[in-house]
Amino acid sequence: MTRLTHLDETGAAQMVDVSDKPVTHRTAIAEGAVRMEAETLRLIMRGMTAKGDVIATARIAGIMAAKKTHELVPLCHPIMLAKVAIDIEADEDLPGLVVRATTKVADRTGVEMEALTAVSVACLTIYDMAKAVDRGMTIGPIRLVEKQGGRSGHWKAEP
Amino acid sequence: MTRLTHLDETGAAQMVDVSDKPVTHRTAIAEGAVRMEAETLRLIMRGMTAKGDVIATARIAGIMAAKKTHELVPLCHPIMLAKVAIDIEADEDLPGLVVRATTKVADRTGVEMEALTAVSVACLTIYDMAKAVDRGMTIGPIRLVEKQGGRSGHWKAEP
Amino acid sequence: MTRLTHLDETGAAQMVDVSDKPVTHRTAIAEGAVRMEAETLRLIMRGMTAKGDVIATARIAGIMAAKKTHELVPLCHPIMLAKVAIDIEADEDLPGLVVRATTKVADRTGVEMEALTAVSVACLTIYDMAKAVDRGMTIGPIRLVEKQGGRSGHWKAEP
Amino acid sequence: MTRLTHLDETGAAQMVDVSDKPVTHRTAIAEGAVRMEAETLRLIMRGMTAKGDVIATARIAGIMAAKKTHELVPLCHPIMLAKVAIDIEADEDLPGLVVRATTKVADRTGVEMEALTAVSVACLTIYDMAKAVDRGMTIGPIRLVEKQGGRSGHWKAEP
Amino acid sequence: MTRLTHLDETGAAQMVDVSDKPVTHRTAIAEGAVRMEAETLRLIMRGMTAKGDVIATARIAGIMAAKKTHELVPLCHPIMLAKVAIDIEADEDLPGLVVRATTKVADRTGVEMEALTAVSVACLTIYDMAKAVDRGMTIGPIRLVEKQGGRSGHWKAEP
Amino acid sequence: MTRLTHLDETGAAQMVDVSDKPVTHRTAIAEGAVRMEAETLRLIMRGMTAKGDVIATARIAGIMAAKKTHELVPLCHPIMLAKVAIDIEADEDLPGLVVRATTKVADRTGVEMEALTAVSVACLTIYDMAKAVDRGMTIGPIRLVEKQGGRSGHWKAEP
Repeated sequence: MTRLTHLDETGAAQMVDVSDKPVTHRTAIAEGAVRMEAETLRLIMRGMTAKGDVIATARIAGIMAAKKTHELVPLCHPIMLAKVAIDIEADEDLPGLVVRATTKVADRTGVEMEALTAVSVACLTIYDMAKAVDRGMTIGPIRLVEKQGGRSGHWKAEP
Repeated sequence: MTRLTHLDETGAAQMVDVSDKPVTHRTAIAEGAVRMEAETLRLIMRGMTAKGDVIATARIAGIMAAKKTHELVPLCHPIMLAKVAIDIEADEDLPGLVVRATTKVADRTGVEMEALTAVSVACLTIYDMAKAVDRGMTIGPIRLVEKQGGRSGHWKAEP
Repeated sequence: MTRLTHLDETGAAQMVDVSDKPVTHRTAIAEGAVRMEAETLRLIMRGMTAKGDVIATARIAGIMAAKKTHELVPLCHPIMLAKVAIDIEADEDLPGLVVRATTKVADRTGVEMEALTAVSVACLTIYDMAKAVDRGMTIGPIRLVEKQGGRSGHWKAEP
Repeated sequence: MTRLTHLDETGAAQMVDVSDKPVTHRTAIAEGAVRMEAETLRLIMRGMTAKGDVIATARIAGIMAAKKTHELVPLCHPIMLAKVAIDIEADEDLPGLVVRATTKVADRTGVEMEALTAVSVACLTIYDMAKAVDRGMTIGPIRLVEKQGGRSGHWKAEP
Repeated sequence: MTRLTHLDETGAAQMVDVSDKPVTHRTAIAEGAVRMEAETLRLIMRGMTAKGDVIATARIAGIMAAKKTHELVPLCHPIMLAKVAIDIEADEDLPGLVVRATTKVADRTGVEMEALTAVSVACLTIYDMAKAVDRGMTIGPIRLVEKQGGRSGHWKAEP
Repeated sequence: MTRLTHLDETGAAQMVDVSDKPVTHRTAIAEGAVRMEAETLRLIMRGMTAKGDVIATARIAGIMAAKKTHELVPLCHPIMLAKVAIDIEADEDLPGLVVRATTKVADRTGVEMEALTAVSVACLTIYDMAKAVDRGMTIGPIRLVEKQGGRSGHWKAEP
């Protein structure tokens, strides 16, 4: 039967051994959203037109958070992130902002958690910067969209 | 018209001045969920019965992340967190785990971001520990449930 | 004769006791510059017109660094920063960018180091983002411009 | 025409992809100074003779900061620093202290930012430890002196 | 019967609520040792005579670690450390180095963990700097020596 | 005569150059203990039976601290930790808890400091969680038990 790989045979948490895994190129894409009042989205986008700082701040926060993933998620391995790119777009139908992070590495372990962490912190930053006008915003769903490289190969979320 | 408080009159990001705000007791409660396959939930909960480590690890990760909020969210003020408690429960109807964080402080600024950050990182940790068996899990919605203290007084999310 | 306050009578480094100092409002302003080729400045400013990201990124980096001051400068006390604002302007005569940081706190110790750290890291970020086109940029002079509050009162740099 | 490599085609900040770059040996040397009153320099140097702590503390602060570069400068990649050495010397003509940092790595990306960050934080530490006797000290100019390895090869600052 | 205060009634870890505790002056003193070969101690002390760097580096490491206590020990509250002093002395009878840390704060919670963390990391640093000549060194015993302030008042370890 | 490798010829601290060392598999095992009253051990172990949180929290704290070793110990190199496992067992004869950490890496430098740091912080966490009922606990001896890989080959502590 399947066993959770982060638990050893007695159930204790461990950081699993990856030292014998080959160094391969790995990529991950994660996505999330912040849902808000239509008026909040307008305020943010107008800010973006003028100086772009909500979007720019959330993007930087997400990039910096990706580099902190192993400090936040206890059993994640430190990795030498080779690329982080974050794309944030307005979706008037939500209404809200859609955040998408792409991460790459040439390492022994994957970069899904880095992409998911980048999205989560970018969303938290958007919430923080707009919370004075809209406390009822919700974050999510945050999910892995795609993953390449490593033993498990290419994986794509169902649409 | 309403303006986003983190942007100054030219649109540039700033960490707003709270030095003249009074020190008051403030509390926040945030909530989120990780949706997963029913079988994944069963694996985690069985682990919990034996040694509890998925739940325990996520709880610790959330508590430690709450203390890092101002390092992650660029315009958050450092605060002297007085309490962080995290409650994680299985919900077989989702199916998945529901994470709830309560934060308290006696300070010049609120603790909503700390509660939301704790929930986000606890969810990321659950994802990380179960991802080998279920890559399609989704995180969210994460939202503020309740908030007390400070100028804006008592706020409660609609049910 | 004057003695360096961070050294005890035997010359060993210490983090000096501030527990008996009163909590007062304190402000500091620090300033610095990155000197560069005129063409580099034009490239950065054109970026700013389009999306503003060099300036926005440096500003966020400076704000986040201010909060890390006590982790970087060994004998600095942790403080509850109440405000950080960073202003970055083009100066075609240098040619280059002038960075100015204002910090505030209501605490037992001053905020000069936070302002100076914010300026330093904002300058490093500008260097990083433009170094591919201009490796010869220089950072500085970085200096304290003004300081208010605390036992030493109001101090202003000579012009 | 030249474009800033940290901005994508729409001007948004990104951490550029280095996963296909070869792992090569890279070295960087950066330099900076803290200018101060002659009397301040004498106080520091006398301390150095007795126990050496201003110089020793600044050196340690610089080494530790080099390891934090990617946490401070938003678009820097994490790297496996192989060496950091910091040399601090008195210059009675300035008068002040001259700080020089040498960094090495066998990685996919350069170590200039690590050397510049080490120098910046060593200078901030010197300022912090002497500020009670000399608030008018200035930091800089900080600049890259030399750089080896990687695609851009050997680069040396003009004297 | 006595209950561990960090566990709630169901046994889950929590960061206990200190928001209603009064702000009082609190002090702690902790002590530890690194036992080593007599020859190792001689090498370190000779270094200290010349430039003092093993001792100076361990002292700075301990001070900086005290400020990181709440990032290391999961259920520790962040506090505004008002003082950290570290004293390191050679003991030829051990033979080895004895490390003693004094911490102070005016806050709602104690500073024992900060003093113990400072001692632990200073000892680890000594081990690191001398391990090439003596891998068999041992660290400890590390213990709280004295504690003042807060509800539990004055406590002193038995000699 | 033997010289401490972290000091250069003038006695100044440096982070030694490892860029020319080969990447090899390296393992380290470190061990330590927290001595306490028999009644304290019973309280902790009963907690462990119910929800296991003292042990689980200390284990997570130790794993996360191992990843922070180079931020704590000034002259340690950042490394890509491939595995951290922590085992904590009750010893009624001490009485107390025995902590053992195993670390692995495929890198240019060893993992002893990571194992020793993991043990130290796991011990500090146990102390923190039980200190309200037993302030007289002592930590140590902490020591390296075994080490494999790298130029110095296989090393084992005397029993």
